[in-house]
Amino acid sequence: MPNEQALAELQSFLGDRLARSKSERTQHGVNETWFPPTLPDAVAYPQTTEEVSRIVATCARSGCPVVAWGTGTSLEGHALAIAGGISLDMGRMNRVLEVRAEDMQAVVQPGVTREALNTELRATGLMFPVDPGANASLGGMAATRASGTTTVRYGTMRDNVMALEVVLADGRVIRTGTQARKSSAGYDLTGLFVGSEGTLGIITELTLRLHGQPEAISAAVCAFDDFEAAVATVIATIQMGIPMARIEFVDETTAAIFNAQNGTQLPEKPHLMVEFHGSESSAADDARRFGEVVADMGGAHFDWATTTENRNRLWAMRHGAYPACIASRPGCMGLVTDICVPISRLAEAVRETREDIAKSGISGPILGHVGDGNFHAILLIERDNAEELKTAKALARRMAERALRLGGTITGEHGVGAGKKDLMTMEHGEAWDVMARIKRALDPDGILNPGKVVEVAQ
Amino acid sequence: MPNEQALAELQSFLGDRLARSKSERTQHGVNETWFPPTLPDAVAYPQTTEEVSRIVATCARSGCPVVAWGTGTSLEGHALAIAGGISLDMGRMNRVLEVRAEDMQAVVQPGVTREALNTELRATGLMFPVDPGANASLGGMAATRASGTTTVRYGTMRDNVMALEVVLADGRVIRTGTQARKSSAGYDLTGLFVGSEGTLGIITELTLRLHGQPEAISAAVCAFDDFEAAVATVIATIQMGIPMARIEFVDETTAAIFNAQNGTQLPEKPHLMVEFHGSESSAADDARRFGEVVADMGGAHFDWATTTENRNRLWAMRHGAYPACIASRPGCMGLVTDICVPISRLAEAVRETREDIAKSGISGPILGHVGDGNFHAILLIERDNAEELKTAKALARRMAERALRLGGTITGEHGVGAGKKDLMTMEHGEAWDVMARIKRALDPDGILNPGKVVEVAQ
Ligand SMILES: Cc1cc2nc3c(=O)[nH]c(=O)nc-3n(C[C@H](O)[C@H](O)[C@H](O)COP(=O)(O)OP(=O)(O)OC[C@H]3O[C@@H](n4cnc5c(N)ncnc54)[C@H](O)[C@@H]3O)c2cc1C
Ligand SMILES: Cc1cc2nc3c(=O)[nH]c(=O)nc-3n(C[C@H](O)[C@H](O)[C@H](O)COP(=O)(O)OP(=O)(O)OC[C@H]3O[C@@H](n4cnc5c(N)ncnc54)[C@H](O)[C@@H]3O)c2cc1C
Repeated sequence: MPNEQALAELQSFLGDRLARSKSERTQHGVNETWFPPTLPDAVAYPQTTEEVSRIVATCARSGCPVVAWGTGTSLEGHALAIAGGISLDMGRMNRVLEVRAEDMQAVVQPGVTREALNTELRATGLMFPVDPGANASLGGMAATRASGTTTVRYGTMRDNVMALEVVLADGRVIRTGTQARKSSAGYDLTGLFVGSEGTLGIITELTLRLHGQPEAISAAVCAFDDFEAAVATVIATIQMGIPMARIEFVDETTAAIFNAQNGTQLPEKPHLMVEFHGSESSAADDARRFGEVVADMGGAHFDWATTTENRNRLWAMRHGAYPACIASRPGCMGLVTDICVPISRLAEAVRETREDIAKSGISGPILGHVGDGNFHAILLIERDNAEELKTAKALARRMAERALRLGGTITGEHGVGAGKKDLMTMEHGEAWDVMARIKRALDPDGILNPGKVVEVAQ
Repeated sequence: MPNEQALAELQSFLGDRLARSKSERTQHGVNETWFPPTLPDAVAYPQTTEEVSRIVATCARSGCPVVAWGTGTSLEGHALAIAGGISLDMGRMNRVLEVRAEDMQAVVQPGVTREALNTELRATGLMFPVDPGANASLGGMAATRASGTTTVRYGTMRDNVMALEVVLADGRVIRTGTQARKSSAGYDLTGLFVGSEGTLGIITELTLRLHGQPEAISAAVCAFDDFEAAVATVIATIQMGIPMARIEFVDETTAAIFNAQNGTQLPEKPHLMVEFHGSESSAADDARRFGEVVADMGGAHFDWATTTENRNRLWAMRHGAYPACIASRPGCMGLVTDICVPISRLAEAVRETREDIAKSGISGPILGHVGDGNFHAILLIERDNAEELKTAKALARRMAERALRLGGTITGEHGVGAGKKDLMTMEHGEAWDVMARIKRALDPDGILNPGKVVEVAQ
């Protein structure tokens, strides 16, 4: 095994925090997506930045790949060690280092999950809003430029990461960004590492922007006769400037699955799930104005969830959509694919995607963060059915092509990983080569998460 | 002249749009800052992306520097051709190409100024909010990652540029970003070019995020007995979550200068100038809550400007601060310097800066976008007085050091240019070298705005 030398050296200072057992390698080589298992040679569990630096420097010397691992929830095979090497599990670097309430900032290690951070923040009146559904690590969320239900109001990881500590491909440690809210001091390295999927450096610390917990929240679910009316409602709400904190779309297939899995009684129609944050009066006012839009569009809102409990039920249902879909077809797995288009083209994008899925014979609920023009299809395919996998991949590819034709992007939030690398040139043309040049400049030997995001001739 | 070959070739296709007259070179080699004049060898006036591409490719072949020129209002010598070569004046690429009202986006050429864009948008109900005071070009604003009075609410250029067309150092044309509101498709090249000050590529087209014109606006000026009370008001307002659209600080020196220059009767005390955007009721509500904070802090608000005319007068005064300061000392010029610190350290940063300026014997009004923790000193020095220039530079350097000590940045919005390059290593350490590696990867021969932002061994 070519990485033996590196592994022996790592073992010498990590001891049993370098795991080589089949079971630990399997935990870091298999996930719920359709990607075939690929086990790393070993799993390292660093506890400090210095250790990360030493691990990377050691691996660099013998060209051993280093693939960071957050919580492994990414959906395009991002964290799989497809060229072998070390899976660098950041899970033990999971401390909230500082909360600077006055500046509305938190400094965290990369293994802190978003739920853990919000639990820690509860008493401060502050929150970290980016919410990809899964209880992902903040390092992984930064690395994939994650976003989610609240992005329409609070932005993506791009907007909420202020500063980073990063270990470079040669083991050097740098800091990007500052505690100031803005800066013009040179190239935006923080922005460059956010979304780089572990291919340019390992994030060992993040300074995050926090937001005030809203004084008041109102939320609702409403049903529409067709998805066009739902989308028209979204556009009108945006144009009226009603400040939504969340606005999620689920189609009739998803609604039917919710009912079957959760015992709910939603009409089996397209739905919007919305939330407003503000003062008591502004949240109520926003909700009232939204209700008028819904009525204009022929929708019926049948459930205003003003209590925390009802609201939590609402969002648990939305966040449970993925497992519910999987459970709806025994023995199946999901190929989850996401695209994002300009709002004005959303109806078109959803319509064509529905038609395409319908023709394919595969079941594929559609749902998404429609306030951003972002939606997903969960393509439900039988395990080990090569034919269905091929059909699903072709559907996903056509979704990406459609997104580009409509002025959008092949991935709104899930990222590139291994799964969408082949589509990158379609979106970026020559700019993809610029990305490769940056990769070569920062990681000349290609040891950081090789085979992802960019194509680099070695 | 080593660039003769390139100039002859350029002349062959640009004709009289390659200007070599002393007067045109002087216009592009002198500005109101303290930087000594440095004339380019020639000024090129491209009209299309293809021309920009051909100019850059031509210059690349003979190693002739290309320095983009927007409106020349940058304050750190950014646009000066300090290594000779071509000044690439983008002023004739000044068309608004498309306004996509439904998606709240505009596509513009880089020479469009922010005022021209807003004039064009007036009837659409939309606006482009980033406002650096000067009527700068949108290409220049993107290149410096500009921000300004409205950033506390609407963000900087980083937040409001969605996509770019860029001519690379070898003449190739790329597109970064899409019309979708977010994307995770690889490295954030848009973010990389924003703030790169013409050192990585020439911006030939921008897709900008627009915002709805507020239904209602309220604005006010209030005076405080000391600047600590003004700063405490800012912090309290942020913490109460009152959404300010602008909150500007001017010190007592600036107030005195306003009075002398504009015939106003402001008390000669520190002031805050604020603005709220929203619905009639929310803007009024925000203003009322702000008024309570001001009263708590012992401030007196004496002027609510609800009419457009009064508001325009208020902001004209603020935007006229720079010329007013210059005019206040005949024969002087201003060394304008900017830093940004976390809000919690703002009072400290302002206090120490005031004391330092007071000790220096130079007059230096302080003012700034305090909602972001960003402020400027306008150091008023006699023209051709080497001693005063030296004192002012030392003050500016100490401001930068202070910003770093307090967790901030050496420049919140003006950028690096030639003036702050020496300070970059202080802020970024090894990360400055990462910037240089990116520069080398994208512009290996160093023809794009050489001598700025990064240090590259040639
Ligand atoms: C049910 C479900 C719903 C989802 N919904 C959303 C959604 O709404 N929005 C969304 O954006 N995503 C969503 N995702 C995808 C996933 O949650 C995100 O991509 C998340 O950001 C991944 O975080 P992680 O900690 O699991 O990272 P991992 O999957 O462990 O890793 C992701 C990538 O980041 C790299 N990485 C991890 N940590 C670091 C580090 N410290 N330094 C450098 N690189 C690192 C890895 O190498 C890998 O390339 C969903 C996933 C599931 C299973
Ligand atoms: C009175 C006054 C007040 C100011 N207040 C503020 C403020 O509040 N906030 C703020 O941010 N700034 C402020 N500034 C600074 C200045 O207005 C900004 O830096 C502005 O963004 C510069 O734009 P410009 O078009 O004048 O660019 P220029 O000065 O012409 O160029 C600036 C830099 O951008 C590059 N560049 C220009 N066009 C392009 C292009 N198309 N492609 C690539 N590179 C390009 C140039 O090479 C140069 O490096 C102020 C300046 C003055 C004089």
